[in-house]
Amino acid sequence: MTRGFPEAEFAARVARAQALMADHGLAALLLTTEPEVRYFTGYITRFWESPTRPWFVVLPASGKPIAVIPAIGAPVMARTWVEDIRTWRAPDLSDDGVSLLADTLREVAGDGPVGLPMGHETHLRMPLADYARLGESVNLVSDQGIMRSLRLVKSEAEIDKIRTACAVAGRAFDRVGEIAAAGVPLSQVFRRFQMLCLEEGADWVPYLAGGAGPLGYDDVISPASDTPLAVGDVLMLDTGLVVDGYFCDYDRNFGIGAVDPRCLDGHRKLIEAVDRAMEIARPGATAADLFHAMDTVLTGSAGGSEAGRYGHGLGMQLTEWPSLIPDDHTVLQPGMVLTLEPGVEIADGQVLVHEENIVIREAGPERLSPFSAPELRIL
Amino acid sequence: MTRGFPEAEFAARVARAQALMADHGLAALLLTTEPEVRYFTGYITRFWESPTRPWFVVLPASGKPIAVIPAIGAPVMARTWVEDIRTWRAPDLSDDGVSLLADTLREVAGDGPVGLPMGHETHLRMPLADYARLGESVNLVSDQGIMRSLRLVKSEAEIDKIRTACAVAGRAFDRVGEIAAAGVPLSQVFRRFQMLCLEEGADWVPYLAGGAGPLGYDDVISPASDTPLAVGDVLMLDTGLVVDGYFCDYDRNFGIGAVDPRCLDGHRKLIEAVDRAMEIARPGATAADLFHAMDTVLTGSAGGSEAGRYGHGLGMQLTEWPSLIPDDHTVLQPGMVLTLEPGVEIADGQVLVHEENIVIREAGPERLSPFSAPELRIL
Repeated sequence: MTRGFPEAEFAARVARAQALMADHGLAALLLTTEPEVRYFTGYITRFWESPTRPWFVVLPASGKPIAVIPAIGAPVMARTWVEDIRTWRAPDLSDDGVSLLADTLREVAGDGPVGLPMGHETHLRMPLADYARLGESVNLVSDQGIMRSLRLVKSEAEIDKIRTACAVAGRAFDRVGEIAAAGVPLSQVFRRFQMLCLEEGADWVPYLAGGAGPLGYDDVISPASDTPLAVGDVLMLDTGLVVDGYFCDYDRNFGIGAVDPRCLDGHRKLIEAVDRAMEIARPGATAADLFHAMDTVLTGSAGGSEAGRYGHGLGMQLTEWPSLIPDDHTVLQPGMVLTLEPGVEIADGQVLVHEENIVIREAGPERLSPFSAPELRIL
Repeated sequence: MTRGFPEAEFAARVARAQALMADHGLAALLLTTEPEVRYFTGYITRFWESPTRPWFVVLPASGKPIAVIPAIGAPVMARTWVEDIRTWRAPDLSDDGVSLLADTLREVAGDGPVGLPMGHETHLRMPLADYARLGESVNLVSDQGIMRSLRLVKSEAEIDKIRTACAVAGRAFDRVGEIAAAGVPLSQVFRRFQMLCLEEGADWVPYLAGGAGPLGYDDVISPASDTPLAVGDVLMLDTGLVVDGYFCDYDRNFGIGAVDPRCLDGHRKLIEAVDRAMEIARPGATAADLFHAMDTVLTGSAGGSEAGRYGHGLGMQLTEWPSLIPDDHTVLQPGMVLTLEPGVEIADGQVLVHEENIVIREAGPERLSPFSAPELRIL
């Protein structure tokens, strides 16, 4: 995998965006969040962890994106394909880029509508007071879902990065036997697993969750406790690690010695659910179809788990559109990267979950993560 | 350091907030971001990495906070001191918690003003379209800076966690000689340094930046390149690692063998700048005073670096209010945790930066990071 993208990748993204903007009559797009800014520029930094400074990218109806950013980011942005970089000295407590941004938007859009992502799974990363001020001189409207439809479908270069991230996690999962055993606190397993991910090639590890117990775990988003693993526990680790700005997102379950037979059965059922989804995961099927294919195996009925979904999109973020839920009728297209994430209740409030990563191809799904066998792996 | 906080910590935060709300005539606060939600609830999870679901906390004019959250978060929220937990099955593409939130706000606030953080360093973590819909039935206004003023001053329990995070990073910095040497790619040093942070006790490592070069580095927010370190380079590593939800944020510089004397001088100047700031860092001084104390050493004049500031607040986030800049006249109070982060230009566009973490006490500043000596450490 080569780091970064050739300029043609960004030019293609911009061309797709501008065609959709023309369809919807938008004079410009305004982007404020990390993945949105990176999508059009390639600008990558962990500095987004600091909430102090806003960052803006303006995409005009034609031509390259314009970066309107704090001066501290200029050297890194200058290494991207972006040529028009406008900076201010941030933080500026009286005008933190707002008038520079307003001038830029007036210049490229005039009184025309400027689209911002406003729908599901989006937010605005700038202070609300500044947004209100911007709206006094700029015609701010919804992007009509353009960013969603662009990012739903990944390029081959993007898929390659996700595949690389999946392989890194796969090598780390293969080594869990080195760090997990009865008596080791779960918090220590979490620390050591992140170290394995880094050693195997992750740039960073933004997400790790998991759980452990004799009949599964009662939630799947907890940080680790200091409780030691015990013989008979099922340990689950779910990681979203990053390589060159792209995530994997999948988990593995491990038996700490002999486990309850219900867990072995439950794990087989999870794999069977994934198999069913794989049978139908091709262009033309919907996100809801994948949900129902898995739910038939898992619950024998409609409804599904309280977690509400059995998978989702994946890419520059840990979770993206669509959602594998009954109400999401997004039609699958080649290049969509998805997680399949079934869950099954083993006992009251105790669940097992399993997750794999795939990409939709013309002829059917391609595996990105190294799929798990039906038999629970015993350490 | 004990994990989490006693209930009294949260009760004290709520009492301070409700006193300020009464002063400003606010009927409730609405919080949507990770640190804001955690501040009043103690709810801690890395699941915020997923942008799919919004999370809400409502603080009424009296009584405990109310959590309005996706069902997937209920088990973790139920372990906090919060009693009133209202959930919906998210994602819901037609109503993702908006009507449940509106009902809750109407119940506790009626037509009264509901404050949201709207100022500098804040954002709203929910879709703009949902925010507009909420505004149709709820009187949404600015929080008048209440969250800022609450979070500016840390409790002893919070300071203890930041001190622990600083100590973890200090042990990792002490071991940089194990991982950095001429010929090792910077990207490998970054990976290995994150592993050291984890091994020494970090829960996770959300931030690592740095640079290397014979006369310093041209930016301080880049991810690592694969360029190998060379004899004569100055290597800088700047980490924001987390222990129990609280950050440290400081850096260290290292010489890879003998370095240019200008770098040795520059490093001494950075330490001198920190010393000057420490002399005046006490209640009554302002953020701007600290800037000027350092800037006199660094540039001999007013103005300062293009990066725009010489330090900032620190706590639940990598960077918080205030900013050590000429225009920030925030008056220092006991319990404020700050970074001192001077920078100096060694050659055209090449800088050295240095950073330490302190807490303001009645009698003067207390060191939280293990302060660096004036002499650059040579590996």
